[in-house]
Amino acid sequence: MAAAAASLAPASLSRFSPRCAARILLYSTVAGSPRTGHRWLIAPSLPSPPFLRRASSPLLCPSPSSTSSPSISQASSRRIFCSQTLAVNAETDVKVVTETGGEVRKFKKRLKIVDVKDEGLDRLGQSMSIRGWVRTCRVQSSVTFIEVNDGSCLSNMQCVINPNSVGYDEVESGSVATGASVLVEGILVSSQGSKQKVELKVNRLVMIGKVDPSAYPIQKKRASREFLRTIAHLRPRTNTFGAVTRVRNALAYATHKFFQENGFVWVSSPIITASDCEGAGEQFCVTTLIPNNHEGDGCVIDKIPVTKDGRIDWSQDFFGKPAFLTVSGQLNAETYALALSDVYTFGPTFRAENSNTSRHLAEFWMIEPELAFADLNDDMACATAYLQYVVKYVLENCTEDMDFFNTWIEKGIIRRLMDVVEKDFIQMPYTDAIELLDKAKREFEFPVKWGLDLQSEHERYITEEALGGRPVIIRDYPKDIKAFYMRLNNDGQTVAAMDILVPKVGELIGGSQREERLDYLERRLEKLNLNKDSFWWYLDLRRFGSVPHAGFGLGFERLVQLATGIDNIRDAIPFPRTPGSAEF
Amino acid sequence: MAAAAASLAPASLSRFSPRCAARILLYSTVAGSPRTGHRWLIAPSLPSPPFLRRASSPLLCPSPSSTSSPSISQASSRRIFCSQTLAVNAETDVKVVTETGGEVRKFKKRLKIVDVKDEGLDRLGQSMSIRGWVRTCRVQSSVTFIEVNDGSCLSNMQCVINPNSVGYDEVESGSVATGASVLVEGILVSSQGSKQKVELKVNRLVMIGKVDPSAYPIQKKRASREFLRTIAHLRPRTNTFGAVTRVRNALAYATHKFFQENGFVWVSSPIITASDCEGAGEQFCVTTLIPNNHEGDGCVIDKIPVTKDGRIDWSQDFFGKPAFLTVSGQLNAETYALALSDVYTFGPTFRAENSNTSRHLAEFWMIEPELAFADLNDDMACATAYLQYVVKYVLENCTEDMDFFNTWIEKGIIRRLMDVVEKDFIQMPYTDAIELLDKAKREFEFPVKWGLDLQSEHERYITEEALGGRPVIIRDYPKDIKAFYMRLNNDGQTVAAMDILVPKVGELIGGSQREERLDYLERRLEKLNLNKDSFWWYLDLRRFGSVPHAGFGLGFERLVQLATGIDNIRDAIPFPRTPGSAEF
Repeated sequence: MAAAAASLAPASLSRFSPRCAARILLYSTVAGSPRTGHRWLIAPSLPSPPFLRRASSPLLCPSPSSTSSPSISQASSRRIFCSQTLAVNAETDVKVVTETGGEVRKFKKRLKIVDVKDEGLDRLGQSMSIRGWVRTCRVQSSVTFIEVNDGSCLSNMQCVINPNSVGYDEVESGSVATGASVLVEGILVSSQGSKQKVELKVNRLVMIGKVDPSAYPIQKKRASREFLRTIAHLRPRTNTFGAVTRVRNALAYATHKFFQENGFVWVSSPIITASDCEGAGEQFCVTTLIPNNHEGDGCVIDKIPVTKDGRIDWSQDFFGKPAFLTVSGQLNAETYALALSDVYTFGPTFRAENSNTSRHLAEFWMIEPELAFADLNDDMACATAYLQYVVKYVLENCTEDMDFFNTWIEKGIIRRLMDVVEKDFIQMPYTDAIELLDKAKREFEFPVKWGLDLQSEHERYITEEALGGRPVIIRDYPKDIKAFYMRLNNDGQTVAAMDILVPKVGELIGGSQREERLDYLERRLEKLNLNKDSFWWYLDLRRFGSVPHAGFGLGFERLVQLATGIDNIRDAIPFPRTPGSAEF
Repeated sequence: MAAAAASLAPASLSRFSPRCAARILLYSTVAGSPRTGHRWLIAPSLPSPPFLRRASSPLLCPSPSSTSSPSISQASSRRIFCSQTLAVNAETDVKVVTETGGEVRKFKKRLKIVDVKDEGLDRLGQSMSIRGWVRTCRVQSSVTFIEVNDGSCLSNMQCVINPNSVGYDEVESGSVATGASVLVEGILVSSQGSKQKVELKVNRLVMIGKVDPSAYPIQKKRASREFLRTIAHLRPRTNTFGAVTRVRNALAYATHKFFQENGFVWVSSPIITASDCEGAGEQFCVTTLIPNNHEGDGCVIDKIPVTKDGRIDWSQDFFGKPAFLTVSGQLNAETYALALSDVYTFGPTFRAENSNTSRHLAEFWMIEPELAFADLNDDMACATAYLQYVVKYVLENCTEDMDFFNTWIEKGIIRRLMDVVEKDFIQMPYTDAIELLDKAKREFEFPVKWGLDLQSEHERYITEEALGGRPVIIRDYPKDIKAFYMRLNNDGQTVAAMDILVPKVGELIGGSQREERLDYLERRLEKLNLNKDSFWWYLDLRRFGSVPHAGFGLGFERLVQLATGIDNIRDAIPFPRTPGSAEF
């Protein structure tokens, strides 16, 4: 069975082996169609159990027929999921069955609340059905207001139901509780309320999935973010996390749009790497030497293969040598930039740092563009244009969510983001930044000295106070505090590096022009005692048609924090991984 | 230093610690601008070495000035990278320096060969400069033809240079060799040749990065794909891998476009997971217990912490328990679909299978959409629409690359892909497929029997022969050969699963309606002896407002194979990871 599963990978979705021997069973699921007499014929040599011969479509409940709508009494007398499946299938096209099987029906975008909301009053008077989850249910004497949300936008659809509507018994029985899923059918009318322009006058309500209100952990009262992290599978059902998810999505799509529109090619840098030039430390080891089951009974240390001198025998590991999770795709991206000119990566990267802070994740997504035939000025210009593009995109396309953040998460965030879009970014050499800090009339916790790295307090002083809320790019850092691959400036002491600082967030982007001169790069590796041989392919890029090139990296979750005002980076990614925590 | 680096993560790009103590050095890099007298002032308290006080911009060579073009004799007398940096900086805007630093210049899309080619004859007579890598250089008696490629498209720019052109000495000295990088300036003229409409009449050639022809591994003669895999850092410079990379990029972008246009939200499913419901086997273990350096001297097995009974002490591992690389983001995607309605993942997934075949990767990218309020018919319709959309996108947007594949990689691939776009997909129950195979007048290697999985030979017979080259969806598989989460059909024996088969590739997509009924799902887990407690959050989705939902998964590299005709999946991803191989 394992071999069979293996033969399907990687496209196979069967990630759980069924753990049963296959059973031989003969039967047929062909459904006769009312529109055609053709159907796939069962050969006499393949007898099927008679009761299965003319089974109805497996997606429909046994009764009633798929063409008639169920009355509410029918629906409520059956199992909850049955009634709901039926409701869904009421819209299903009738399957056309021919000698060669039925054609697949056309994909239709389902009507969502965001569509109704966006088109606003144009749809007044239309009949429609909405599916979603109940946020609140307020029973009043004559009418009941049900707020339904489907996650397509922050807004709920206000549904007004009265005792004559089909399915009102679900309201009476208390089933229409926070978290339950429902189908509501009705007419779109103008709303009397001040919070929405339109509301749905409900003709019919069908309960899809019930909820036990006493057990459902997300109630109307506001839950702490810390608590919500423990139920990361349910937190997207809250206003805050729904909005964060949509803004995160918009930032990701805007990222692709920006680079694609500017001729960059997306390159997937590898996640697992056995390359020796990743450098030491802070990496997760990836191995199959440790028996990989979850029960723990296979985790006896004696089962790990060792060499005669008691060392781990890497030759028996999956890749035949130690392998790690990548900390950056930059070096790989450079290889593609020096063939395709402009590329970008957008993928996960990892740090095995034991940092339990609100700014650190063990697993995070990174965007790393790399530009060929480009210097540091090109790099800064690209990073600036990129940042302004994606922020503008969110402000224009996520207005409702941004208003929510502006009201509930960080007052003034929209103004702050508009500054990023509208104000010119300032560039300043590191040396000047040091001078600026030195002249500042304030005490810093960390020392300010040429040759020392800038700390968060310094960065924020520069961008928030000294330059009055403008994004700032600090460039030309001392070479000894920057990475080996950054291009040495003519002064011999600084490198063509740059960091972009933005108000409130601090450092958001780091980039550099890369050292494209073979002799300079080799000297630098030697100086740092790095093993030149392991960089053979990276050095090849400088041996064969080297060109000046530059790039930058941006931690995507930091960008999400910038755009949403969310304080803790663990709330900027669906399933955060931090020391001691990799649930879900 | 490690702590300092840690404080920057995850946005920090400094992945290599500089390994030197920071040195204190005072100097300034401010450049006086010819356009403004303002510049950042050096305070007397910060004395700088006089020779650095008025250093020119660090990105320019010391001489000549940035505004005058270098004569070729100047360029050739200096270091190779110096002349090229100068050439790049000739276009750099003059830095505007004010009291608060200079503004960042505007980002401009660089002129690329694809732009010139696309706009074709509109640009005739225009002056332009092109940067790229020499593909070939044919010296003839009166003129020399240099084919330059910049990776923006398959086409080279044919550059015609004569002995009077500036930089012709580079041709004479043999420097203009395959793989060298050059800047060519000239006038766009109509081409006499049949292979291109336009060519560049070169006024000036500047050598950017030389190449040693005897050492450069990519020569004009065709190299085997096996060999090219050993130089994965250079292979994107070949026609084939350049084209594969561009088509892969187009498929990725089309994927995002399709889902975004249909209201799906991109969700990043976690890569590392300690969740117990990933199932056993075939996973990579992720750990920090093994000393993570590359030298091997820390890999003494005694250093791994153990409990008293000789088992690995997981409490000391990074996540406090065993953690693994994900094999699928589906279960996580379901949690978001049941909050936001329609979502999709697009990220890397992993299999620790020891399969050294042309269809397997240990690391591959997967696309996993999940639709709420959807059944198997919706799922099939969505998968069909998606597949037709992305294939159509590539046919329309990568015409030149597709012509290349059609000529050199797989004759007829365009016709095959047009069939995918134009022909209606057929759906057929598994039971009927078994019957079809049973009646086929041919011998199969593997047995055909209800209850056994379909093998590749069966799938290809159905899609290629029995149904004449149409994509086919097989649905309603026996439950015992499918995963636990698939929805049980009313017959009690099959599940609402589907696989999409396409000619030549076979299975491309696998999907299912998910079991949304709590009691059914719990019974299934029990039957398969899976630990129900570890599925607590997955079961919660069925406890609280469950809805019918469905989704599918597609191995992205299989899609790249489909669209390019590339036989070996290792050539469909930039840096393939397979047993024994994780280089670069």
